Amino acid sequence: MVSPAVGYTLIMRLETRSTPGAFVTLASAIADAGGIIGAVDMRSVGRAVLTRDVSVTVGSDAVASAVRAAIGRLDGVRLISVSDSTFLAHLGGKLRIDPKIPVKTRIDLSKVYAPGVQRVAMAIAADPRKVFQLTIKRNTVAVVSDGSAVLGLGDIGPLAAAPVMEGKCMLFKQFGEIDAFPILLDTSDVDAIVETVTHIAPIFGAINLEDIAAPGCFEIESRLQERLDIPVMHDDQHGKACAILAGLINAAAVVGKRIEDLTVVVAGSGAAGTATMKMLLTAGVRDVIPVDRAGALNRTDRYEDSHWNWLAENTNRQNRRGTLSEVLKGADVFIGASAPGILRPQDIANMARDPIVFAMANPTPEITPEAAAPYAAVMATSRPFFPNQLTSLLAFPGIFRGALDCRAGRITDGMKLAAAKAIASIITDAERGPEYIVPSVFDTRVVGAVARAVAAAAVEDGVARRHLVSEGEDLTAPV
Amino acid sequence: MVSPAVGYTLIMRLETRSTPGAFVTLASAIADAGGIIGAVDMRSVGRAVLTRDVSVTVGSDAVASAVRAAIGRLDGVRLISVSDSTFLAHLGGKLRIDPKIPVKTRIDLSKVYAPGVQRVAMAIAADPRKVFQLTIKRNTVAVVSDGSAVLGLGDIGPLAAAPVMEGKCMLFKQFGEIDAFPILLDTSDVDAIVETVTHIAPIFGAINLEDIAAPGCFEIESRLQERLDIPVMHDDQHGKACAILAGLINAAAVVGKRIEDLTVVVAGSGAAGTATMKMLLTAGVRDVIPVDRAGALNRTDRYEDSHWNWLAENTNRQNRRGTLSEVLKGADVFIGASAPGILRPQDIANMARDPIVFAMANPTPEITPEAAAPYAAVMATSRPFFPNQLTSLLAFPGIFRGALDCRAGRITDGMKLAAAKAIASIITDAERGPEYIVPSVFDTRVVGAVARAVAAAAVEDGVARRHLVSEGEDLTAPV
Repeated sequence: MVSPAVGYTLIMRLETRSTPGAFVTLASAIADAGGIIGAVDMRSVGRAVLTRDVSVTVGSDAVASAVRAAIGRLDGVRLISVSDSTFLAHLGGKLRIDPKIPVKTRIDLSKVYAPGVQRVAMAIAADPRKVFQLTIKRNTVAVVSDGSAVLGLGDIGPLAAAPVMEGKCMLFKQFGEIDAFPILLDTSDVDAIVETVTHIAPIFGAINLEDIAAPGCFEIESRLQERLDIPVMHDDQHGKACAILAGLINAAAVVGKRIEDLTVVVAGSGAAGTATMKMLLTAGVRDVIPVDRAGALNRTDRYEDSHWNWLAENTNRQNRRGTLSEVLKGADVFIGASAPGILRPQDIANMARDPIVFAMANPTPEITPEAAAPYAAVMATSRPFFPNQLTSLLAFPGIFRGALDCRAGRITDGMKLAAAKAIASIITDAERGPEYIVPSVFDTRVVGAVARAVAAAAVEDGVARRHLVSEGEDLTAPV
Repeated sequence: MVSPAVGYTLIMRLETRSTPGAFVTLASAIADAGGIIGAVDMRSVGRAVLTRDVSVTVGSDAVASAVRAAIGRLDGVRLISVSDSTFLAHLGGKLRIDPKIPVKTRIDLSKVYAPGVQRVAMAIAADPRKVFQLTIKRNTVAVVSDGSAVLGLGDIGPLAAAPVMEGKCMLFKQFGEIDAFPILLDTSDVDAIVETVTHIAPIFGAINLEDIAAPGCFEIESRLQERLDIPVMHDDQHGKACAILAGLINAAAVVGKRIEDLTVVVAGSGAAGTATMKMLLTAGVRDVIPVDRAGALNRTDRYEDSHWNWLAENTNRQNRRGTLSEVLKGADVFIGASAPGILRPQDIANMARDPIVFAMANPTPEITPEAAAPYAAVMATSRPFFPNQLTSLLAFPGIFRGALDCRAGRITDGMKLAAAKAIASIITDAERGPEYIVPSVFDTRVVGAVARAVAAAAVEDGVARRHLVSEGEDLTAPV
């Protein structure tokens, strides 16, 4: 199960005896167990007992348990109930849908609903392109998931995935000024997902596929891209791949190697791993070696999984065979999108000079930064607790912002490459270093830079349907 | 096409000569054509010409054309462009989706997204009922349409229907405090709609079907009700039927007749007409006579349309045959959910004493209130320009509010009946009269009264999953 590595805050309702020193004893017990008391509020005062809400920040589930156990051992203290700041933040969900203008009078009603809206509807019926001007389509993205591969939790299904997708929608708004709505699917059947998303597409300006398991995610994305005239992107693939490539561009600069000359071993051929390999090839990396449970994927062995065969055909220039440890010997870069702990320090020691290690497994990386430190020249993970967090949050808000702004019909390889380069370019030559290869997700320059680069690439690739400079809104009909 | 009977405002950008009296001539021409000037803003001032934005309110499309024509005939005046307050209100769409709490720091991010959200997701995985506490499900409704029967505009398709569904979502929030999101379907196939809505249901607390053509709407609604454990209601059927029944309860009181004794002729067996007939039967009306293009539906004739056969079997107690005019003789009530102008004043004259006439066709009623006035004791329409507007807006916000509040698994006949009675009950005996049989949609008492009645009926009917009085949020886990 998950062991979150950042703290959270419990609000504990506690009853103590109304005697001098009772609270000090309680507070000491909480502190000794590792809890940090943040606030104390009196709830009710009786003659013999006092009831208080005590906020206790804990660093992990284990500390939370220890605090509870310590309280349980105290004489005269009763734990009435426990709430939790994270759960309280989720109460009632995390999104709201509001009218942009109020409907308080009959005049308002006539304008936004019948009969005014009927003229607007007929204007779209006469010219369907007007849907981008007169409805939410132009700024609305569906965050679509079946809950089959959620944030390292695995296949937890659509209901349990809902808070994650709501969170993703919040990020779309906060970082990209995009209205995003979560669509949770009660099916993981590829055909059913493709049909369903096609049928609900009209109101959306783009589709963000999220946390859908491989290999289904590949087919779902490519079939939807063919059927729809709006961008469809599986963020777990391309958002992560963009962030990884951005990090690699700067990591290579740090160690003084050229991207084209790198030998990159990629462990894991799931959504993120596969997209990363494709993107590395697009970016000009010539030697990419995929490794999965069968070792290095190669053209000598044959695999049941057609996806593995595709990878074996299109990567591994020297057709190397062997275990991860074997193929890592002399490699420049390790990129893990696989499982906790599969990389040993010795493996890094055997790589070429100044090894670059991106251990992206979530929540626990392929090797801890501490273990890698003596050998790796540049180290990155997907987690926020270490330097160099490579996360799709650097990429997707700007990619979708740019795609919506220029009304791109799809997201091309060129647009993704432009996004990666834009992320990397935020960091100047002077700033760049082993612990600063990508900007912070809160760096406000990132989204705009990515959006502009993506829109420019869309024009270049001929998929933009709106040119930003020349076009205003044309609601004033020319006479 | 539509001829809206309320005005709208054009913003006309006009260039005139910079000579004394030029604007007065222009203003007179606009006024003579029927336009009402609301505001004048100078845009640019040249030596010879002036450019102004002139706001002109017009009562209809015809007046708008007359104003344009009159301007066209003026010497030295040039109409540069025209915009429109209704279209401007639709620019960029009418809904926004926002985070309920901001995501500005790493701490926020850890709480609403990884890793905090992972604990929330796992809590739902362990107990799926928690989805109602920890996600937007408990207050979120899908407004689902294929655009096949939109507001009297007919089958205009999903893109053109989008502004209408956005407007409906605004009404859900403004009147019912409900977060509603428009789902526009690119298919009108019954099976495909049922599959699609089933697949996207997990995030929604209820489904509002909207503007879907009969007879498909009947099957779609009943199949979805069977497959889903959340309320599914086609508002064009049941919302309108509730408003009509509410009006009939008070209209019967006005003329001193008992509901049970009424003979009610219903013209039109589409969505609204059929639901109204079913609801009248549920409410205790014994003599309901459906009339469609074939005249009164009866058990002697057989019909290709299985829906007509069902109506013939279950209504028309005396098995009457004949045209609308024939069966109206001696009837107490006419309810039209059909087509403009099908009712003649003479038909009303031939009804029983104190005829009740609900001419609900939209946008043009079966008979105008002016033509009916000499004969009808109580007259109502679906339109806001006459007294007694019977609109589903009286019903659906409270029905869904009540259903969500008690987490109803479905919406029963008892809940709909309770809603109709609650709407009717807003009007006291002293207030009730021929021109006041239902409250205004802006009467703030309506939604609460309907919601409470609906939730109580849900408990009565055994479909409530949450009892309002006893249950608080139980996020504080009992120890």
